[in-house]
Amino acid sequence: MAVRTPDPDDLPEDPDSSGPADLGQGPVSLDTGAIRLPGMPNAAKNPGWLTDVELAEIRRRLPILYVEAVPVRTDGTGQVTQVGVLLRASPLGEIIRTIVSGRVRYGETVRDALFRHLENDLGPMAFPLLPPSPVPFTVAEYFPIPGVSAFHDDRQHAVSLAFVVPVTGTCEPRQDALEVTWMSPEEASSPAVAAEMEGGRGALLRMALASVGAVR
Amino acid sequence: MAVRTPDPDDLPEDPDSSGPADLGQGPVSLDTGAIRLPGMPNAAKNPGWLTDVELAEIRRRLPILYVEAVPVRTDGTGQVTQVGVLLRASPLGEIIRTIVSGRVRYGETVRDALFRHLENDLGPMAFPLLPPSPVPFTVAEYFPIPGVSAFHDDRQHAVSLAFVVPVTGTCEPRQDALEVTWMSPEEASSPAVAAEMEGGRGALLRMALASVGAVR
Amino acid sequence: MAVRTPDPDDLPEDPDSSGPADLGQGPVSLDTGAIRLPGMPNAAKNPGWLTDVELAEIRRRLPILYVEAVPVRTDGTGQVTQVGVLLRASPLGEIIRTIVSGRVRYGETVRDALFRHLENDLGPMAFPLLPPSPVPFTVAEYFPIPGVSAFHDDRQHAVSLAFVVPVTGTCEPRQDALEVTWMSPEEASSPAVAAEMEGGRGALLRMALASVGAVR
Amino acid sequence: MAVRTPDPDDLPEDPDSSGPADLGQGPVSLDTGAIRLPGMPNAAKNPGWLTDVELAEIRRRLPILYVEAVPVRTDGTGQVTQVGVLLRASPLGEIIRTIVSGRVRYGETVRDALFRHLENDLGPMAFPLLPPSPVPFTVAEYFPIPGVSAFHDDRQHAVSLAFVVPVTGTCEPRQDALEVTWMSPEEASSPAVAAEMEGGRGALLRMALASVGAVR
Repeated sequence: MAVRTPDPDDLPEDPDSSGPADLGQGPVSLDTGAIRLPGMPNAAKNPGWLTDVELAEIRRRLPILYVEAVPVRTDGTGQVTQVGVLLRASPLGEIIRTIVSGRVRYGETVRDALFRHLENDLGPMAFPLLPPSPVPFTVAEYFPIPGVSAFHDDRQHAVSLAFVVPVTGTCEPRQDALEVTWMSPEEASSPAVAAEMEGGRGALLRMALASVGAVR
Repeated sequence: MAVRTPDPDDLPEDPDSSGPADLGQGPVSLDTGAIRLPGMPNAAKNPGWLTDVELAEIRRRLPILYVEAVPVRTDGTGQVTQVGVLLRASPLGEIIRTIVSGRVRYGETVRDALFRHLENDLGPMAFPLLPPSPVPFTVAEYFPIPGVSAFHDDRQHAVSLAFVVPVTGTCEPRQDALEVTWMSPEEASSPAVAAEMEGGRGALLRMALASVGAVR
Repeated sequence: MAVRTPDPDDLPEDPDSSGPADLGQGPVSLDTGAIRLPGMPNAAKNPGWLTDVELAEIRRRLPILYVEAVPVRTDGTGQVTQVGVLLRASPLGEIIRTIVSGRVRYGETVRDALFRHLENDLGPMAFPLLPPSPVPFTVAEYFPIPGVSAFHDDRQHAVSLAFVVPVTGTCEPRQDALEVTWMSPEEASSPAVAAEMEGGRGALLRMALASVGAVR
Repeated sequence: MAVRTPDPDDLPEDPDSSGPADLGQGPVSLDTGAIRLPGMPNAAKNPGWLTDVELAEIRRRLPILYVEAVPVRTDGTGQVTQVGVLLRASPLGEIIRTIVSGRVRYGETVRDALFRHLENDLGPMAFPLLPPSPVPFTVAEYFPIPGVSAFHDDRQHAVSLAFVVPVTGTCEPRQDALEVTWMSPEEASSPAVAAEMEGGRGALLRMALASVGAVR
């Protein structure tokens, strides 16, 4: 299924977002080059951002770093009992399945990016438990041309650090995510679900389940 | 430091314990051979257990499977902020530092063993968050003769699956653990702390910290 | 498929084997209790071993530690191109599929056990490249009663550390392994292959493939 | 030690390099935007590259994806016996210690980038054995401001996937690496070696050793 990776950074609901282009926003004001790292006051307004042309160009020059998360419910001993899969409307109006996904911004830690995208996609009451280890269960490589790897994204070359993240609260998807569907591990790894997932993320979901031993 | 691995299984406070010998207790009644797996009713009483001689012998015949846990406190993004180290009196009355550790019983899952030993060593209000993945951060091999590996245990050949486990509640050590000391990652990886730990567990603590990126 | 885990330790071809029972052999003479750790001279003959009754009993008292290996071929950049699956005759004469598997002996390191079983099952010219890390891709728990976990073994409660091991030479199965079949990752993860594997090892194979990113 | 990450991409010896700026080179001709993914013919010449100003700017807009490798020697069972540390002259003429490190290019897989940088830094006869798994032992985050994480790089925000890679051949450093020094794991994790390493890579080396169990 050749679809674009929905990128929460693109959306005006993102509280950090200051413009229409996802690479012009965030902790750096591009015209001044002033770095605003986490914890630093935002000294400068951000009067400029990347134009659509600049954005398209930069996506053809560099691999873009992403984080992805497979939300899960666990029992009292940590065993995964349910897997959360997002339903989202594609830019073409198609309903597709996906997982939590988004770009790491300049100056942002991987953890902060992961937390931000979990909150964006699952709402502020999801209470995700981010893992103590920074090591992802896999590194997914998305290429604009299908077939180079298991994953593709026609907009860009993206490299994604993918994590399994238990959530303990209530998920109220924001932005363009319509719904979180909770499934058993068996259902989540079925061919039917994989066929509805974008960009090869059915494979990513199966790797997530394998990493937690939830394969039969 | 040549000390014995304190084994909570040996202690009468252990609710599952039915006798003085840790290999005779648990979910199998040895005289009948009836297996009592988790979730099965306990059909048979357990009138017999291993004698001390049998216990010593079995420990010289087979590697014994252990689980170990390094308790940690994390911040809202999962980053480790503190490490819990146990203070315990050795059988010789010496005060030593250690981590959560204990044997996996016949018929018990690794997760259940991990949970049981965390509860035994940290108390029922520790609220440990067991990881969704069954993969340990390392496999520690304890041999009765020092120098074969980084770890030794003069009683036995033990192979331990070691995990980092965030705890969210209050730790009230039970059994023979006197106290849980919370340290910064820097302090926990210091040579001073390593020198006080038994059986090479200073190395295990450093591996735990490395696995969560808490090394500088 | 309820079959017994073929255990190379049971077989007379095993050069270390001194008798019919796998728990009486190896680096300890049970009647004297003398420990013979690797590198130590074998001071004592081994006049005794466990009887069948003792063997059956010990397997009902303790979880038995195993290692397992999925042999793979890789290309020049480490990517898995082929997976080796063993064909073996079951004790009942059935032809079943399996992977490299065997017990860790008393006094033996996990690495040495892994190497020994690879050599036993693939022959001395397989030239396996054991991984530098001691961390398995998963921990597989086999219970005598089906359904407790994804894996079962009607003889025992076994806990297995499972590794993906590239082999660079020629595989000439010894012992009771009839043949190594090399398959593409896609074929190895197919339901048809899983159905022919014993004790749930189809799931183990899929987890192995997921751990190396070979899932589509 | 506040030094710049030496970047082999910057150097004219790099056969793929088409200019003085590392972000203008590689498998994309920036003026046309034509993507040249691996395996595709290079249809377009690359008449343009990023100016120094553009380069500096892009490094302040996006986290840059890196791979890093700790070269090791292993024994027959995969155990790490020696660790390779590079000696390199910094741009200021200082001699510093480092590991294999470099950027992932647009259209390049992580594996290909890892192989390319290993070959650049260790020579064509090093014969590295890249791991079958795409999962790094850690994810190192370099920020331009010291103290945000254990790692820093005053040029950029870089996120690095770090691997332990056994090498089986002869290392003849090319480019600006003067020498590979082979050390025992103990020596490599010593404070003395860490003090000579750039950008916090002493910590990275210790994490690498911990991931392979080579910590005492």
